[in-house]
Amino acid sequence: MKIAILGVGVVGGGTAEVLVKNKERIARSAGEEIEIKHILCRRPRPSHPFARVLTQNFEDILKDESVGIVAECMGGLEPAYSYVKSALAAGKSVVTSNKELVSERGRELCALAREKGVHFKFEAAVGGGIPVIRPINKCLAANEISQVSGILNGTTNYILTEMINFGKSFETALKEAQEKGYAESDPTADVEGIDAARKISILADLCFNKEVLPKYVRTEGISKISPEDIDYARAAGYRVKLIARAMRTGANSVTAFVEPQLVAKTHPLASINGVQNAVLIRGDAVGEVLLAGPGAGAYPTASAVVADIIDAVAEPNPKIFLGWWPSEPGYAADADELSSKFLIRVGPRLKEIGENFSNIRFINKSGARADEYAFITGYTTKKEIMEKAEAIELRAIYRLFE
Amino acid sequence: MKIAILGVGVVGGGTAEVLVKNKERIARSAGEEIEIKHILCRRPRPSHPFARVLTQNFEDILKDESVGIVAECMGGLEPAYSYVKSALAAGKSVVTSNKELVSERGRELCALAREKGVHFKFEAAVGGGIPVIRPINKCLAANEISQVSGILNGTTNYILTEMINFGKSFETALKEAQEKGYAESDPTADVEGIDAARKISILADLCFNKEVLPKYVRTEGISKISPEDIDYARAAGYRVKLIARAMRTGANSVTAFVEPQLVAKTHPLASINGVQNAVLIRGDAVGEVLLAGPGAGAYPTASAVVADIIDAVAEPNPKIFLGWWPSEPGYAADADELSSKFLIRVGPRLKEIGENFSNIRFINKSGARADEYAFITGYTTKKEIMEKAEAIELRAIYRLFE
Repeated sequence: MKIAILGVGVVGGGTAEVLVKNKERIARSAGEEIEIKHILCRRPRPSHPFARVLTQNFEDILKDESVGIVAECMGGLEPAYSYVKSALAAGKSVVTSNKELVSERGRELCALAREKGVHFKFEAAVGGGIPVIRPINKCLAANEISQVSGILNGTTNYILTEMINFGKSFETALKEAQEKGYAESDPTADVEGIDAARKISILADLCFNKEVLPKYVRTEGISKISPEDIDYARAAGYRVKLIARAMRTGANSVTAFVEPQLVAKTHPLASINGVQNAVLIRGDAVGEVLLAGPGAGAYPTASAVVADIIDAVAEPNPKIFLGWWPSEPGYAADADELSSKFLIRVGPRLKEIGENFSNIRFINKSGARADEYAFITGYTTKKEIMEKAEAIELRAIYRLFE
Repeated sequence: MKIAILGVGVVGGGTAEVLVKNKERIARSAGEEIEIKHILCRRPRPSHPFARVLTQNFEDILKDESVGIVAECMGGLEPAYSYVKSALAAGKSVVTSNKELVSERGRELCALAREKGVHFKFEAAVGGGIPVIRPINKCLAANEISQVSGILNGTTNYILTEMINFGKSFETALKEAQEKGYAESDPTADVEGIDAARKISILADLCFNKEVLPKYVRTEGISKISPEDIDYARAAGYRVKLIARAMRTGANSVTAFVEPQLVAKTHPLASINGVQNAVLIRGDAVGEVLLAGPGAGAYPTASAVVADIIDAVAEPNPKIFLGWWPSEPGYAADADELSSKFLIRVGPRLKEIGENFSNIRFINKSGARADEYAFITGYTTKKEIMEKAEAIELRAIYRLFE
């Protein structure tokens, strides 16, 4: 089988390397040898190790009828979308690591692949090397899934781990992450939760078989988390994690959101540290399953891309395609109306706290400021708390992960 | 597609229930409806909910050409082995939850399935509902796997969790586990590590493509763990877990063993509590991946059995089969010669400790007996420590999980 790789960056380059390094093992799993016929590259790179197969012209790949599979590892919506669409339309299977593409155009591209009888696969788009997509589609296919959640962004998890374990401020931890190459020079997509929102959008699509576009994922990042909040969380037995979460909230509604939440320190998610990612899936038969590992990086992501390539080679004529339908208006419900417990930090308004809340648990931490209180609420909604925000002088609010 | 289930106990009954309960979702994933044509049952059970399809005669199933898939959920080597072999020989696909069968006869049955062009699948045989087999075979197919390990027995993990969290003795925790139905009246297979050894034998087979029979898995259970050992481990920052582990130890050798080991309290495996199971896989591209969830129980196991049924329906003519070859003599290496750190508890032989060990870290715990020492060694082997056992009056030895 001859394949083409689009992009020669971290993921594309890693994919080519893994295909060469583990050639024999891969051929055994795929049932035949896999040959890299072309790699698409924007600029000429005559001294690149794969220079012999580099091309700057996508048409070379599209028109090469010997190429059965295209691995898109460029990222971004364009030109990835146009290339993937043309490749599928030409009857080539496509595997991709591109979460933006899958979250925004996945439904359409799956439908096109189905029409053409080829594969459109994207194990690498969520959770890097962690097996996630196949476990949901295959291993848990007997389950009605009620909730999928997890830590889907390694950059923010690294920053939070440094803040929690070493008392660093957000700014310091971010700067160090940038120096180590864990965060980009413009860290917005990671730090503000946009990357995690794209990934939970994809997981929600698969678990609930309806399109939950990223714009319907209410997204909050980690830039406002203070060391103080982390200390209060610790004093109450929790760790602050950036949690992406999608849950069935009614017969025909799903709520999806990304926000910092408090995870009990004994929960396995609390041990997912540094750049690791983790996905928790709740199904009616299986109960709860945790999948964890490296969520990014050249070789972990390549591991997932190559697994998809192997599948596409081993089964050239797929018979089963993902069901993934458009969602009706109102399908995406508002996370603010979800009943949860919260840790909130407020001003010195004991009277107002008493008037507005019952069944609360105050948190004592050493070195707490005299002019504020922190407590854990009973079950309520963010909406209700926000209505009381002014009265209690609300300073911070964190949902408990349960 | 018409199928038959062998056995109507916990797993067989659960499988039938899940197939009925989630019929529509399952049909969507499989591409067609799945009908339970027969369930094999030893005794007549006229009032059973599935009485209409019960049969006491395996020949009814074998000779029914409309039955394309047999789900073996009886457990034990016989008659399961004979039934599975006849079903495969008759050209029917087989899925099974039977770890004894797969660990002892898996290689032969896979070869027979390959010869007949049908499926032999066993996702449920390891880790209950946790996706394990498919992630190893499919998602990590691009990786050379160097190690697979984990907590593979829920009964012992429950007992250890109770001992660790509530200071119970082994005997008390076992008795309570039996009362709650988590341990059998004869708990030997669980408590002595035999069940975990079967499962790690299967994982070793798959990860290394060679047969590692259970008899080559050096197996030690949890019955000798004292509350004292648990306290020393805690004082040193560790939790005692029954770890099953298989690792490549040379170009042509693998070491597989089951024994209580010490897991650092910050390691995700330390948070796997109660009857939960977990599997850690280390691959050259992906790094390390953790898969965790319910390792037993009617519905979790049924979730895995039905996933295999769906796969077999969706892809009636498999093209790719597991490579699983006989192992040469000497393939299974001795775990006693594996270099590790150990926590050991010894008599009051300070002089002999000094003569026999260097670079050790003594462990102080409150309430420690005056007549003994506990310490963590540098890298050494169990064999070397055992040679010094008499001199230092060795009382307990635990390998550190790293």
